Amino acid sequence: MITERIKELGLKVPEIAAPVASYIPARKEGNLVYVSGQLPLRKGQLLMTGPMDANRKLDDALEAMEQCFLNGLAAAGAAEGVSGIDALKSVVRLSAFINSVADYTEQHLVANGASELAGKIFQEAGKHARSAVGVASLPLGATVELEIIFSL
Amino acid sequence: MITERIKELGLKVPEIAAPVASYIPARKEGNLVYVSGQLPLRKGQLLMTGPMDANRKLDDALEAMEQCFLNGLAAAGAAEGVSGIDALKSVVRLSAFINSVADYTEQHLVANGASELAGKIFQEAGKHARSAVGVASLPLGATVELEIIFSL
Amino acid sequence: MITERIKELGLKVPEIAAPVASYIPARKEGNLVYVSGQLPLRKGQLLMTGPMDANRKLDDALEAMEQCFLNGLAAAGAAEGVSGIDALKSVVRLSAFINSVADYTEQHLVANGASELAGKIFQEAGKHARSAVGVASLPLGATVELEIIFSL
Repeated sequence: MITERIKELGLKVPEIAAPVASYIPARKEGNLVYVSGQLPLRKGQLLMTGPMDANRKLDDALEAMEQCFLNGLAAAGAAEGVSGIDALKSVVRLSAFINSVADYTEQHLVANGASELAGKIFQEAGKHARSAVGVASLPLGATVELEIIFSL
Repeated sequence: MITERIKELGLKVPEIAAPVASYIPARKEGNLVYVSGQLPLRKGQLLMTGPMDANRKLDDALEAMEQCFLNGLAAAGAAEGVSGIDALKSVVRLSAFINSVADYTEQHLVANGASELAGKIFQEAGKHARSAVGVASLPLGATVELEIIFSL
Repeated sequence: MITERIKELGLKVPEIAAPVASYIPARKEGNLVYVSGQLPLRKGQLLMTGPMDANRKLDDALEAMEQCFLNGLAAAGAAEGVSGIDALKSVVRLSAFINSVADYTEQHLVANGASELAGKIFQEAGKHARSAVGVASLPLGATVELEIIFSL
């Protein structure tokens, strides 16, 4: 059970972050759930803003990515046609966007924050395809944004 | 009917913008139609070029996004195996790329141009997952690019 | 046969590039194979690093894109549940990310490296939807990254 695994890990599935615009947090289509780009919001506050550069702590970015994944899990579980997060069967793909200065080249390390949490929670079923790219800026100045596709 | 709804809104489905390279405007696969990244072309001219910054008008960017959505609708309707835009059932996901200077952080507001038009045209079926990110540059210098997945 | 076509073209399917992080190179889901973002690695070396600008050779970027496509093909063929690259039926979508300075606007030309190779290898079945965007930076400093969806 996803719910129990999250509890064992000492984590908490957040309240769904309200979308910052006129779209929905997640959309079921067939046996997939497409999750909107998630920002690292915790209790309404961004955990991290501004671009990554060589001087910023990787650990902070990893935590921000974990929060995006948890937010996405909450969104997927609450999507119309999905009966909670325990209905999610596997993680199909993660797309990680990392706000980056031009010479920051460790987007793949930042994305690991989400990938490793996917593995911890879903174990074998958490194995996913992934992209990680460095972008010029993100909504609200967030440092990271994560898009997810889950299967049911 | 999508066609009638568009007419009621005073809009016009454009001729399909020819792809600027060796790919096709849209690809049906199963019951989904994957639409290529659309630029804000109207009658062969880009509506807006260069990056968004705090001094540029949001309204112009919204109009550019609307045009991308209309172009994508036309592309999807004309895809091999799709019998016109009225065969499109719902909007599954939008990926909005906004050419942005580093301190522009309102990509989500720009993306609303496409999201709100999706809602006006498809109503309930227009509810979609979405990402909005700020990118360093786009083909031909366009200010925005929009990728769409429709269901049939 | 995909294998034969690649041989005729004088190309070589590479060994699978090990993922630079905790995810898998490709993930089968239903009749689709989602391929992780591929870097232009050949024998463990990046073919091209740093951003595209007007002074860099397009030919080099095209070759880098071709390598990404070949790497993606290898990854898809080796995915769990996929019996080699000849099991791949068609190319559904390419997402091309091009590390770019702000005034470089020919991402669509760079992406052609992958699109044209898809056509040469898969012929009619190589027709795909595509996005091409310019990003601020990429993992390991790569000039290009390519995400692919194949059908089975």
